[in-house]
Amino acid sequence: MSASYPPAVVLLSGGLDSATTLAIAKQTGFACHALSFRYGQRHALELAAAGRVAQSLGTLSHRVIEIDLRQFGASALTSNLAVPKKNSADEIGPEIPITYVPARNTIFLSYALAVAEVLGASDIFIGVNALDYSGYPDCRPEYIAAFEKMARLATKVAVEGRQHLTIHAPLVQLTKAHIIRRGLDLGVDYSLTSSCYDPTPNGLACGHCDSCLLRLKGFDENGIQDPIQYHAS
Amino acid sequence: MSASYPPAVVLLSGGLDSATTLAIAKQTGFACHALSFRYGQRHALELAAAGRVAQSLGTLSHRVIEIDLRQFGASALTSNLAVPKKNSADEIGPEIPITYVPARNTIFLSYALAVAEVLGASDIFIGVNALDYSGYPDCRPEYIAAFEKMARLATKVAVEGRQHLTIHAPLVQLTKAHIIRRGLDLGVDYSLTSSCYDPTPNGLACGHCDSCLLRLKGFDENGIQDPIQYHAS
Repeated sequence: MSASYPPAVVLLSGGLDSATTLAIAKQTGFACHALSFRYGQRHALELAAAGRVAQSLGTLSHRVIEIDLRQFGASALTSNLAVPKKNSADEIGPEIPITYVPARNTIFLSYALAVAEVLGASDIFIGVNALDYSGYPDCRPEYIAAFEKMARLATKVAVEGRQHLTIHAPLVQLTKAHIIRRGLDLGVDYSLTSSCYDPTPNGLACGHCDSCLLRLKGFDENGIQDPIQYHAS
Repeated sequence: MSASYPPAVVLLSGGLDSATTLAIAKQTGFACHALSFRYGQRHALELAAAGRVAQSLGTLSHRVIEIDLRQFGASALTSNLAVPKKNSADEIGPEIPITYVPARNTIFLSYALAVAEVLGASDIFIGVNALDYSGYPDCRPEYIAAFEKMARLATKVAVEGRQHLTIHAPLVQLTKAHIIRRGLDLGVDYSLTSSCYDPTPNGLACGHCDSCLLRLKGFDENGIQDPIQYHAS
């Protein structure tokens, strides 16, 4: 009976990292409520993937919240700027890429905090990753720790001293190869996930954006083939 | 020329506190961009008030972001629960009221952070108030300080070391009477503002919710009459 497990809110994008995070949250003993966002992103295919992953791994609920980040412009994930393409993960530099969305994880975690408060949950899971993180500021461990500290002061239950909110980022120190190995051990079906920043109209991954290259490298380092389909090029 | 002033994002609800905060931000020397939210609240009249206040005090822009907090339920400001009515501000207790919206200021400040990042602004103003604050956890100074610390780690400019983000909460230690006096000194036209949690269909303030009672007490302590109209009861 899942009712005897404590509830947790799990941010679920439909990509490889968040699917693995959900599997870890379940294995840790939480009754998971998935939370996804429709935020004007080009890769809306991710939301379909999030639905498949939530169903496959078994969540108590799956909320999709509509938010409009497009008005903030300036990101290749939400505007018409071209997604940069490369031939190898080795070409990914330390600079913050143009696919960065302003304050994205802060906004996502803030909604997760609201959902957690309503559900009476003390635990939020997010699949950020500080190693293969493509240079996003809001994927760093010190950022997550600061958000947790703020969140513990932000809510009704925090004031009443009834709960001690924890932001879990179980992938934060793992390489993509480690994440995939961990997920496979937990039975994650990666064929259901979608990671590409710039998929073809019929849903094939491009194979050349930062996200595809990091994913392919991770599978390669495990000596196995990525089960999703890539656009031949 | 306002172009020579540094930009700031000012959260503007259309109430008395945020109008005063905007006036303070302007006087401090910022070129202000107002940010309001349509969040399924009953008191949508506030948004019209926010527009009037932004125009009256002169902002460079006024963004209204649509967010849906109704799905989180459990607040008298966004659901069909009755707004509690009292006869005097002395009846307002220390408990967190039913009008509390889960994680509201965290979500609002997160959007402000995104707008600040896009505008290249290092300053965000919020009119929270820890004295007459009706017991909201996310109005306390320690909460604001923790959000600022998190925000300094969250954004691209923070990582690049180009900016030092500041969350200004100039009203945090003021009583409602002090806020009103300060605003009158700065020329705020409080007849443009709207504070009631439960106005009549034709826009009159109820005079008996916590927000009305605190406002009326503040004007009373200054020995002047509140210029807005109240429903006779």
